[in-house]
Amino acid sequence: MVMTQSTDSPPSPFNLKTYLGDRQPRIEAALDAAVTLAYPETIYEAMRYSLLAGGKRLRPILCLATCDLMGGHEAQAMPTACALEMIHTMSLIHDDLPAMDNDDYRRGKLTNHKVYGEDVAILAGDALLTYAFEHIARHTQAVPADRVLRVVADLARAVGAEGLVGGQIVDLASEGDDSVTVETLNYIHTHKTGALLEISVTSGAILAGADDGAVATLSGYARRIGLAFQIVDDVLDITATSEELGKSAGKDLQAQKATYPSFWGIEESRRQAQQLVDEAKAAVQPLGAGSEPLLALADYIVARTH
Amino acid sequence: MVMTQSTDSPPSPFNLKTYLGDRQPRIEAALDAAVTLAYPETIYEAMRYSLLAGGKRLRPILCLATCDLMGGHEAQAMPTACALEMIHTMSLIHDDLPAMDNDDYRRGKLTNHKVYGEDVAILAGDALLTYAFEHIARHTQAVPADRVLRVVADLARAVGAEGLVGGQIVDLASEGDDSVTVETLNYIHTHKTGALLEISVTSGAILAGADDGAVATLSGYARRIGLAFQIVDDVLDITATSEELGKSAGKDLQAQKATYPSFWGIEESRRQAQQLVDEAKAAVQPLGAGSEPLLALADYIVARTH
Repeated sequence: MVMTQSTDSPPSPFNLKTYLGDRQPRIEAALDAAVTLAYPETIYEAMRYSLLAGGKRLRPILCLATCDLMGGHEAQAMPTACALEMIHTMSLIHDDLPAMDNDDYRRGKLTNHKVYGEDVAILAGDALLTYAFEHIARHTQAVPADRVLRVVADLARAVGAEGLVGGQIVDLASEGDDSVTVETLNYIHTHKTGALLEISVTSGAILAGADDGAVATLSGYARRIGLAFQIVDDVLDITATSEELGKSAGKDLQAQKATYPSFWGIEESRRQAQQLVDEAKAAVQPLGAGSEPLLALADYIVARTH
Repeated sequence: MVMTQSTDSPPSPFNLKTYLGDRQPRIEAALDAAVTLAYPETIYEAMRYSLLAGGKRLRPILCLATCDLMGGHEAQAMPTACALEMIHTMSLIHDDLPAMDNDDYRRGKLTNHKVYGEDVAILAGDALLTYAFEHIARHTQAVPADRVLRVVADLARAVGAEGLVGGQIVDLASEGDDSVTVETLNYIHTHKTGALLEISVTSGAILAGADDGAVATLSGYARRIGLAFQIVDDVLDITATSEELGKSAGKDLQAQKATYPSFWGIEESRRQAQQLVDEAKAAVQPLGAGSEPLLALADYIVARTH
């Protein structure tokens, strides 16, 4: 619920913590309701285990924020917001598999395949991926069908070989390869994490009926914060402890992965991230007061410590 | 006279071979055009390796047939027809993984992970699954958007935890369990293979604008041929050679899997399959002359030897 202020009082400074504290519980509740236990329980338990494991819910937050910014209401965007988190979760489950990054911990908990076995983990990912599309197609309210179809198409592109999967493929191929360029690193991250962040930002606006110009502006914002997010991730992998991250720290060095700090060092990486965030903020500032959550989220990305 | 003779002559009997020979090349061409090579090539090569590995294209054929039967035209259904084959292919790639059925051969060729590695095979499946939804949402022509959304939602349900994945989970849990009942076996097959066959049949009709009654009739047909198909599959696993099947024969016995022949014996299994096919044919006969492909496809299922 949005509290309206008296028109006479000066606007209170935007408080991201309050904003997140307001929305995160609603997102948690929507995710909890979206995937309920049924026969065969194992698959639903495995899906819920990773889907409801916490996390910042950054993608749903971004989707709800741009829907709001463009004059839409939450019910229009919530199914897509949940779908974004389902897909993000699926990508983590599959990434953590022994055949991929072989991680035992994620968000401070055992990874899905460590609890349910590799077979169930693969299937839980498949089920979350496909359910994301069902959830959008079946539960989106008060949005013309052609707009919903566009979100389905754009989201699918962001996840497939032209998006997340393509980034992951290049990432796997680059491991231990010391001839990786910064261009390849950019490709990896604009696809592996950037594409899903971009559709998180644009989908909310599209569902609210934003015009192409506004969607393009928001794409520019999203691409910049996506890359900044990844640069900060690379820095944190070096500077933060495993306890702070809730996952193994120092994995990139161990895996001999090319990272932004390996090209630029830590300080220059931080500077580049800050510059991207500044550009992202400048891009959305003209959209008016409703852009405050996007400005604050951009700042949050460079300021975060885990 | 020639004119009189031709109007008096009985209609030529429906020829399934000619029918398939007409449609299969168009499906192959559409699949080939749907997934083209691009950077990063590895993922597209892996997707194409399994997608274009031949096979009967039964699911696309069924989708095109019911679209045609309900007065639609091929362009309305072809993207969905291709999507069905993409999803079927993804399920085979993931099923064949070492963590699942651990198969080295499929359709007479090395399985995807034997050629590209497990990591790429997992991602190729993910990419095909997600591209299926993009392909329908972006390329379906001359169909109202709400109908396309319904197909997206119904297809996703057929693939996820309520469908294919659910069947696969119960199948994995039942392996080596000698207390499996015929009801569990039915659950496995109506979900693992039946759900995708059912949406193959109903999606074509939905896209063509069929009413709910016709869609329900076609669902009944599809459920019966789906189960018959699986019973015949179980029988062939015992009676056919690996060469005929293009994959390892006798896998079910080896894996101590419950099968229809293990409950009923081979002859009774064949009788049950025939009865289901007879019922399926009786269900669609009232739909008129256009139902001939569906009648012939039902017969083909019990008559096939591989």
